[in-house]
Amino acid sequence: MEIDYQKRLARIRNELERLGLDAILVGNPFNRRYLSGFTARDHGIEESSGLLLLPRRGEVMLLTDFRYRQQAETDGPWLTVRLYDKGLTALLAELLPALAIRSLAIEADYTLVSQYRAMSESLAKKDVYLHPLEGLIEQHRQCKDEAELELIHRSVALNEQVFQEIFAGLALGQSETDIALALETRMRRAGAEGASFPTIVACNANAALPHAVPGRETVTAGRPITIDMGLILDGYCSDMTRSFVCGQADRRYHEIHRLVRRAQLAGIAVLRAGVRGKDVDAAARQVIAEAGYGAYFGHSLGHGVGLQVHEEPRLSSRADTLLRDGMVVTIEPGIYLPGWGGVRLEVMAVVREGGCEVLGTDTTWLDI
Amino acid sequence: MEIDYQKRLARIRNELERLGLDAILVGNPFNRRYLSGFTARDHGIEESSGLLLLPRRGEVMLLTDFRYRQQAETDGPWLTVRLYDKGLTALLAELLPALAIRSLAIEADYTLVSQYRAMSESLAKKDVYLHPLEGLIEQHRQCKDEAELELIHRSVALNEQVFQEIFAGLALGQSETDIALALETRMRRAGAEGASFPTIVACNANAALPHAVPGRETVTAGRPITIDMGLILDGYCSDMTRSFVCGQADRRYHEIHRLVRRAQLAGIAVLRAGVRGKDVDAAARQVIAEAGYGAYFGHSLGHGVGLQVHEEPRLSSRADTLLRDGMVVTIEPGIYLPGWGGVRLEVMAVVREGGCEVLGTDTTWLDI
Repeated sequence: MEIDYQKRLARIRNELERLGLDAILVGNPFNRRYLSGFTARDHGIEESSGLLLLPRRGEVMLLTDFRYRQQAETDGPWLTVRLYDKGLTALLAELLPALAIRSLAIEADYTLVSQYRAMSESLAKKDVYLHPLEGLIEQHRQCKDEAELELIHRSVALNEQVFQEIFAGLALGQSETDIALALETRMRRAGAEGASFPTIVACNANAALPHAVPGRETVTAGRPITIDMGLILDGYCSDMTRSFVCGQADRRYHEIHRLVRRAQLAGIAVLRAGVRGKDVDAAARQVIAEAGYGAYFGHSLGHGVGLQVHEEPRLSSRADTLLRDGMVVTIEPGIYLPGWGGVRLEVMAVVREGGCEVLGTDTTWLDI
Repeated sequence: MEIDYQKRLARIRNELERLGLDAILVGNPFNRRYLSGFTARDHGIEESSGLLLLPRRGEVMLLTDFRYRQQAETDGPWLTVRLYDKGLTALLAELLPALAIRSLAIEADYTLVSQYRAMSESLAKKDVYLHPLEGLIEQHRQCKDEAELELIHRSVALNEQVFQEIFAGLALGQSETDIALALETRMRRAGAEGASFPTIVACNANAALPHAVPGRETVTAGRPITIDMGLILDGYCSDMTRSFVCGQADRRYHEIHRLVRRAQLAGIAVLRAGVRGKDVDAAARQVIAEAGYGAYFGHSLGHGVGLQVHEEPRLSSRADTLLRDGMVVTIEPGIYLPGWGGVRLEVMAVVREGGCEVLGTDTTWLDI
């Protein structure tokens, strides 16, 4: 299924029309890829590999530098490429007046205060004014179309496959680092662009750290292990967490694992178009709180996934947004007991009218 | 050699005194680590793992969330940890008036326009005012002290060692992806926190892309290969580029490789305290321009390296800053010929009075 970039661009042009703005400058690399297919990676917000200039009327331009010219021509042959050899601000000061762009929307949530100051000062001299907007493009990214859902399905399937392959070879004494490396290497050999976030492998008491960094702890019989992993395939992310034990799990582990699983199922049961993110979070949280572990589930229930591994909508106690058909979210309750370890279970699901579609095989893993 | 955090904090407190500001909020993860040793990683600017609140007088606080509490206690037992369960802005609105902080410096180059708006609006109600500043902490990071230079030396040495190990096993037919994976796996097994940037392995015509992403091209006899790699060891980065050929290089390759090497040596020859970044860039660029390849060296000559792989100072045609003793920079000229390939050679060097100290073994590699 082909991605229809022109349709996406038309939607943003309509927004500009509605707001009475002449153009938008798109620097967020996920928004940029969403609107153009340009695949270059940025190394942090200070090191952009390019920005789209999307006028309400007229052609889309990719403003980039020397290093990305060839990439731009490969990814977006329909894009007009302009190089900013003397810096972005200088190019805009030359380009915008020539295109009769007087009001330029910028991404308030992807523009630094320092960048904004420099640009607005320089452009005001040319009678061009900046309009910082939040989430204009992101809101269109929330509901996935069929082409995107197909890509997400593939990303989830490959992620599960990679997990299974490494899981099958798991043995006592392997270190967190070894397992994380094996997973990430397998992802890339299998065709992924890379991991969608640094893979978490947490053994023993480290499983009590929700964002543990893999280290020297090793797989130990009967002790908790949590693996949280995702990959990027053709731009789209997957995200999954499995918690299990090698050898025999004790009663306590069984109890906590079942409780987290019940919380996850409670979340899945209420997830559908028309409910709020906080309703889903509350349904899962209540199960854990009623069992007396409320203080040990300190993060939110889930988040949107798409081009970005963490995006809108959120499933948290403060999330008021109504969920809509085609949104893709994680459901990932956890219980973390310092000194002992923890359990987190995470699946991805597509929000539908009347329910949700859980992606992947959604099996829980306890003993191996 | 121990890092003296209190000395670093005292320097920033002096800056606050000088500016008449009550405190600074530090969100940039490199600045945060520089001042506190807190090692948690951020997943992009929107996903902070914590901020330092450094008052001109009084104790330093780490503002973070549930997920990083244990990490904070391990890394900075002397830090007061405060959790922002209801969001950063809410915590600041409560904390700052209680600490009599009325004027708060923020990092203009690490604060989004949207964050700035939300914070300034909410804090103004509590009579607290924000002062966006650029580079206040970064300027202190530019000149490395002896403890830092020791860490950088170790990072460079390990990076070279990893290169040598994989280089020794290089064979015709290996893909860019395979080589990049082998390098990154070896880095992490050898104790690095990870690569300091996505490893570049560019074979054949791909070597004409300065920022090539490793793919399916394979090592081919007599054709250009460029490997640009770095790692993070105890927080400090290395960065090195080697260009070479497997088998017999032709006359053209020899000519271009020697030219790039001559340009690099010309840069090294003028690099010392008291010259400007642009002087060093010009010295190297002139060699390439005089040979008629000026149009094929489209990027700047180098950049600072430290906690961040790309930091101040820059060696570019627009870099007016005077270089100072203890700065660490790369010198990396390149020539890129579309359709054919390219050559880039990169070493790191410490700026000294009267000259520079090249790090690593600084050997060029041509034939293997």
